[in-house]
Amino acid sequence: MTIGRRALLTGGAAAGLGAAAAAGAALSRRSDGPVVPVAATTTGTGTDTGTRTIAFHGPRQAGVTDEPQAHGAFVAFTLAKDVDRAALGRMLRLLTDDASRLTRGEPALADTEADLAVLPAGLTVTFGFGPGLYRAAGLPSPVTDLPSFTIDRLQDRWSGGDLLLQICADDALTVTHAQRMMIKDARPFGSVRWVQRGFRRSPGVQAAEFTQRNVLGQLDGTANPKDAARDTAVWNADHSTQLVVRRIRAEIETWDLLSVGDKENSVGRRMTSGAPFTGVAEHDEPDFTAVDEGGLPVMPDFAHVTRAHVTDPQLKILRRPYNYDEAPDSSGRPDSGLVFASYQADTARQFLPIQRRLAEKDLLNEWTTPIGSAVFAVPPGCSEGGWIGEHLLS
Amino acid sequence: MTIGRRALLTGGAAAGLGAAAAAGAALSRRSDGPVVPVAATTTGTGTDTGTRTIAFHGPRQAGVTDEPQAHGAFVAFTLAKDVDRAALGRMLRLLTDDASRLTRGEPALADTEADLAVLPAGLTVTFGFGPGLYRAAGLPSPVTDLPSFTIDRLQDRWSGGDLLLQICADDALTVTHAQRMMIKDARPFGSVRWVQRGFRRSPGVQAAEFTQRNVLGQLDGTANPKDAARDTAVWNADHSTQLVVRRIRAEIETWDLLSVGDKENSVGRRMTSGAPFTGVAEHDEPDFTAVDEGGLPVMPDFAHVTRAHVTDPQLKILRRPYNYDEAPDSSGRPDSGLVFASYQADTARQFLPIQRRLAEKDLLNEWTTPIGSAVFAVPPGCSEGGWIGEHLLS
Repeated sequence: MTIGRRALLTGGAAAGLGAAAAAGAALSRRSDGPVVPVAATTTGTGTDTGTRTIAFHGPRQAGVTDEPQAHGAFVAFTLAKDVDRAALGRMLRLLTDDASRLTRGEPALADTEADLAVLPAGLTVTFGFGPGLYRAAGLPSPVTDLPSFTIDRLQDRWSGGDLLLQICADDALTVTHAQRMMIKDARPFGSVRWVQRGFRRSPGVQAAEFTQRNVLGQLDGTANPKDAARDTAVWNADHSTQLVVRRIRAEIETWDLLSVGDKENSVGRRMTSGAPFTGVAEHDEPDFTAVDEGGLPVMPDFAHVTRAHVTDPQLKILRRPYNYDEAPDSSGRPDSGLVFASYQADTARQFLPIQRRLAEKDLLNEWTTPIGSAVFAVPPGCSEGGWIGEHLLS
Repeated sequence: MTIGRRALLTGGAAAGLGAAAAAGAALSRRSDGPVVPVAATTTGTGTDTGTRTIAFHGPRQAGVTDEPQAHGAFVAFTLAKDVDRAALGRMLRLLTDDASRLTRGEPALADTEADLAVLPAGLTVTFGFGPGLYRAAGLPSPVTDLPSFTIDRLQDRWSGGDLLLQICADDALTVTHAQRMMIKDARPFGSVRWVQRGFRRSPGVQAAEFTQRNVLGQLDGTANPKDAARDTAVWNADHSTQLVVRRIRAEIETWDLLSVGDKENSVGRRMTSGAPFTGVAEHDEPDFTAVDEGGLPVMPDFAHVTRAHVTDPQLKILRRPYNYDEAPDSSGRPDSGLVFASYQADTARQFLPIQRRLAEKDLLNEWTTPIGSAVFAVPPGCSEGGWIGEHLLS
């Protein structure tokens, strides 16, 4: 199987791709452009949610500023020692080709379960390059691992990675199939370092314009920049961005010992409404100058919102997190938390100062523990016939 | 925390339940009766899919003949040694009370994340009693573990259990929250033996009337009985039923070496359409008497459909399975398959003969391996103020 597959990659498939490129593909849509339905499936089971596609091709990669889908898989690979620049090019051509097929609702090139490909459900596949990929290519890396923070309890099994694929769709079976096809493509070039699956609200369960809750019950993502401010925070001029993935365990057992008031104090927002202490509605701007009758700040200095707050749009980050919930232990203690994912143009300039302030003093640290960490450069998108990373590696 | 909680169970909570029962609750709806929307959430984020409720109370438990929701958790407990009939009653009163609250979209009695309870998304909580629960109660058990089959590679960590909670909803966060609340209730009485989470298509991805595919790409559940035939197969006269849960690993790596034709031969149906070899559409009845030009049966004797086929409606089973997909190993081999769940009035009479025929000769056995097995009696439902198991234990 592996041999046949390998022959396919280096033989016919590569030739096919070359031919397509030579033929000159048409200009493609922006990744966050309009949504295009594909044809109903052969078994007639498609609906708008199932057949929805998000364009893969475009100057920017999809899966970044698109509304987060209900299910996400973050798949990190360690490159094999012998993978050089030429091998990286072969791997990325293959992965790009299959990602573009699957996101259109078409089977992968060597798809063994073609019938599972026909309901893309808003599938996106987003590529991230870790420092090790640049090393393998003999190029300087635009990203480095984060420094360690005193709050960290990082585990190797959730950290690092040379290549990341963020696979998201509104359907878990679609993610499962795409993940399997993409892993089969990458296998000859490395090993799976870690996989983190997560979920958000199912399609239609909650109106898209409302912030979703995390496993601690908090509205999560209120401060995310929107529209033009979002684009300013996320995209570099060359259409690249950067991704931080951190696995943050929720210490739910001790969190649950708190009163609602104490939970709210740790964040600086009301649990139910998400309103800051100085406001009445979720999206009211917190007023950090307000003081109570005793002269103390209404927004506590140690609260998460106070510590994480950023005023300058160019210094904000775009959170795109997923919840995780693995099996509890035999005593019933949950293994639950957040696959925190944030996109920003420059991790050192935007993410790091926030993380430093949080690590230094954030009451919420008591109930959240970072157990995994990885940073990836997210290269520009590509047009039809091109491939992700082409500008770097060809 | 545990002590406070325990006091709550044996004190105020039990008294409250008693009072409600004494007041005489109104007659409740059948579990598969009409769907009732609850009020929009305090943050105004509800939609029809999010606020949909399935009535918990009724002569039959919910989560059996209802259309399977998108996400399911099967949670099995081992009872503590000192749990007797009286303790079982306390545990089941508490679990019943919280299940009825959560399925209405209301917080559990001691809910620590009340805001996560407001979008039930069609939540059902179904109770199953294993042989060990009857032993603890000093009662004869209507179910026994399945005999071992030569195809089995059962693991303790996926097998057995004294109490099962099947928690299903169209939203994964809803399942996560309900699972945590129910486990907190059961904790004083035992330990978590295993948890199996699974998924089906997200709401709206595929029209409800169509059969869904499993991770092997097969349409799974075509032969399920419907309407009156379904009720005949599932329910006993006293409104009880029985549940078999088997974890079936998909040997996807070797499955993927097969041609589509060979895959179809192992099942006796076309992969894409699901039609039997003797028909053109998925729901055409297979004709096991048909022979080809060479005089051989068109439906192969060793095919899954041939082996699993049941004509008598009283001997059919109702499959209600979920897909699982855990993280692959470092070489990329998937850990994926089916949390097979079937409901039938009498496991020995209905399930066992099918399973025996499949174990004896079913080509599909080559690519599926049972690694877990458990059987539960599913007692009748209850009306408001009552509790699941009351007829047995009070």
